[in-house]
Amino acid sequence: MRQSKLFTKTRREAPADEISKNAILLTRAGFIHKEMAGVYTLLPLGFRVVEKIVGIIKEEMNAIGGVQMKTSALQSKEVWEKTNRWSDEVVDNWFKTTFKNGGEVGLSFTNEEAYSNILKNYISSYKDLPLNLYDFKTIFRNETRAKSGIMRGREFYWKAMYSFSTDHESHNVFYEKAKNAYLNIFNRVGLGDRTYLAFASGGSFSKYSHEFQTISDAGEDVVHVSASKKLAINDEVLTEEVIRDLGINKDELESKKAVEIGNIFTLGAKFSEPFNLTYKNENGSEVPVFMGSYGIGVTRLLGVIAEVLSDEKGLSWPVEVAPFRVHLISLGENARELSEEIYKTLTANGIETLFDDRDLRAGEKFADSDLIGIPTRIVVGEKALESKMLEVKDRATQETRMLTIEHLLAELKK
Amino acid sequence: MRQSKLFTKTRREAPADEISKNAILLTRAGFIHKEMAGVYTLLPLGFRVVEKIVGIIKEEMNAIGGVQMKTSALQSKEVWEKTNRWSDEVVDNWFKTTFKNGGEVGLSFTNEEAYSNILKNYISSYKDLPLNLYDFKTIFRNETRAKSGIMRGREFYWKAMYSFSTDHESHNVFYEKAKNAYLNIFNRVGLGDRTYLAFASGGSFSKYSHEFQTISDAGEDVVHVSASKKLAINDEVLTEEVIRDLGINKDELESKKAVEIGNIFTLGAKFSEPFNLTYKNENGSEVPVFMGSYGIGVTRLLGVIAEVLSDEKGLSWPVEVAPFRVHLISLGENARELSEEIYKTLTANGIETLFDDRDLRAGEKFADSDLIGIPTRIVVGEKALESKMLEVKDRATQETRMLTIEHLLAELKK
Repeated sequence: MRQSKLFTKTRREAPADEISKNAILLTRAGFIHKEMAGVYTLLPLGFRVVEKIVGIIKEEMNAIGGVQMKTSALQSKEVWEKTNRWSDEVVDNWFKTTFKNGGEVGLSFTNEEAYSNILKNYISSYKDLPLNLYDFKTIFRNETRAKSGIMRGREFYWKAMYSFSTDHESHNVFYEKAKNAYLNIFNRVGLGDRTYLAFASGGSFSKYSHEFQTISDAGEDVVHVSASKKLAINDEVLTEEVIRDLGINKDELESKKAVEIGNIFTLGAKFSEPFNLTYKNENGSEVPVFMGSYGIGVTRLLGVIAEVLSDEKGLSWPVEVAPFRVHLISLGENARELSEEIYKTLTANGIETLFDDRDLRAGEKFADSDLIGIPTRIVVGEKALESKMLEVKDRATQETRMLTIEHLLAELKK
Repeated sequence: MRQSKLFTKTRREAPADEISKNAILLTRAGFIHKEMAGVYTLLPLGFRVVEKIVGIIKEEMNAIGGVQMKTSALQSKEVWEKTNRWSDEVVDNWFKTTFKNGGEVGLSFTNEEAYSNILKNYISSYKDLPLNLYDFKTIFRNETRAKSGIMRGREFYWKAMYSFSTDHESHNVFYEKAKNAYLNIFNRVGLGDRTYLAFASGGSFSKYSHEFQTISDAGEDVVHVSASKKLAINDEVLTEEVIRDLGINKDELESKKAVEIGNIFTLGAKFSEPFNLTYKNENGSEVPVFMGSYGIGVTRLLGVIAEVLSDEKGLSWPVEVAPFRVHLISLGENARELSEEIYKTLTANGIETLFDDRDLRAGEKFADSDLIGIPTRIVVGEKALESKMLEVKDRATQETRMLTIEHLLAELKK
């Protein structure tokens, strides 16, 4: 894409109404636009990152047998009353609205009830199970405060999967697969190094649930990390018993601030019983379906990556989620023709390229490029014209090399 | 995908609470689930069709220079007051809700104001124009009645593009491109034959707007069709003058019921002026940006295709939007091995296949297959085992042929 066609422009100053690093950087670089506190529009660059994250999550969910669907945002009172989650005294972050012809309706803040209510129509026998269904969806939460930028929104984009199994044992098999799929996702989006499988409080059906916590000073949680085991324990479950359970040396634990970027939970019959979501087992008895839930905040991931992988110059996107693979920068009128040629070559080779074809000074172009954070920068200026080599700079390491176009293409296509 | 893993099951009876053909068929075939009147969940089959439609629209929008982004669902009072569209007396189908810490907020029923408000931050010079931006989004409309199934929802999925040009002339160039892109889309989703470019009332900036009307008895509109010119005139603008403008022979016009599946509109400065969305022209004067809008209801298209391309046996999907390309039906235990082999071959060749591997009678499988409406059905039973040929049936024409697997693959890959 030509940068002259990308309407967003970078800003040197932080927006006055943002305090979180992720929102400041993403706003300055033109990835998001704030509609109101906790509500953001994804501008083209931000949308491209989210699309990449969605693609990765889809691949990993499909690989473990997930089937995608799309539940409605509007949710009915009758459905949520079945689990006693309609009342604002029980769930304090509902957004509710009313139909013109009367009757209250809620905006999805999560999805368990929606799924149980639908599946009730289709599951009747053990032969119908297991099932793993998922959804990407805009979720609404009526938060009192919204101060973490796009990491905690009143409106956000979200993936949730629900698993439906015959029993705990069969559930556990899928739960382990989901755990690994989640680790794959966080590795692929570039957060693997600093993300820990964290033990959190369970429910009636399991001692623990699992969160995926990314170490960050911007985090609202505190976790106790065992570096050697690549595990963490959430603050609220840090007891001698838990430390023993996990076989961790207590002295090794380090307390760190972290952001939760995903969670998986054994629900058991909590959301199946209220809906009579049962199946006939091989002996002919009716048994409640055993459920699990697996959530990831997609727009939160956008925020966390911005927060933890940026430096003083700006954003720095990992290759798999970058809005473009290459930032091609043309300097001066003499370099115009060669730049156009390289742009054509890169595009023809399927390499997503943002082409800075604007009539600006080199310093401004470099500052913009550092702020936007595309992984590889190619500069076409006097040096390239003389040497017939391209100046290739890695955004993360700031390392610069001179490469031929053939060498560069070979590397990018790896 | 194995049909044994597709949790939805077909139903023989129409749901008691639906009167529209599209909702009855899509529900019976397991494409949608009704949450409440006018609100549907897309089940896996319905989701797959919507994904295909989205893919086609994206391709056509990108081909004319569209850039995708994603505006928020929650919309602020201040923004919509600028055009006087916040008041329920002016716009009677808002859904509104309130923040826990006070203040009203609306749910998007359309997008003009959202775009003007954002673009205001980025457009300042004629060099920033033209721009064409689009969005896929869940839209909420507080309709009093919702009786046309998924063709008119209180919540629906939607694509809207807005164009931003320097003047009317430059706008017209893009408007014509958009018109053609829309015709491409409707051809590709299989509605080309029965869809007409219809002249509707314009606004202050143009004599006409254009709708794309698909002839259907389920339509809520009446259009007057000129078959020879492949044009239609909306009922509310049928005057001698319009007939003359379009050079149509009045006697040729036929009145038909139709559904609007898309519309394009010259907005001019209607939504730029209230936001001071202006640019500096080459002479240095500030001029309002000239806008256009281009909408398509994605879930409405799902409904219209179901409505007009179905027959007494069920749905019948055009190839480009079908949830699967092939429905592979295995009959009896003897055919199991060969079916599995063919399933593997089709999948390895990138052909999306729904494999009916269930243990059911032939009659039931065929009835399900007709109802679901996948374009090509392949039956593997005794006949195939004896002849080493596959029985291949076209859903739309009901024509059956015996083909070798090689011949079939060659056809499917065309």
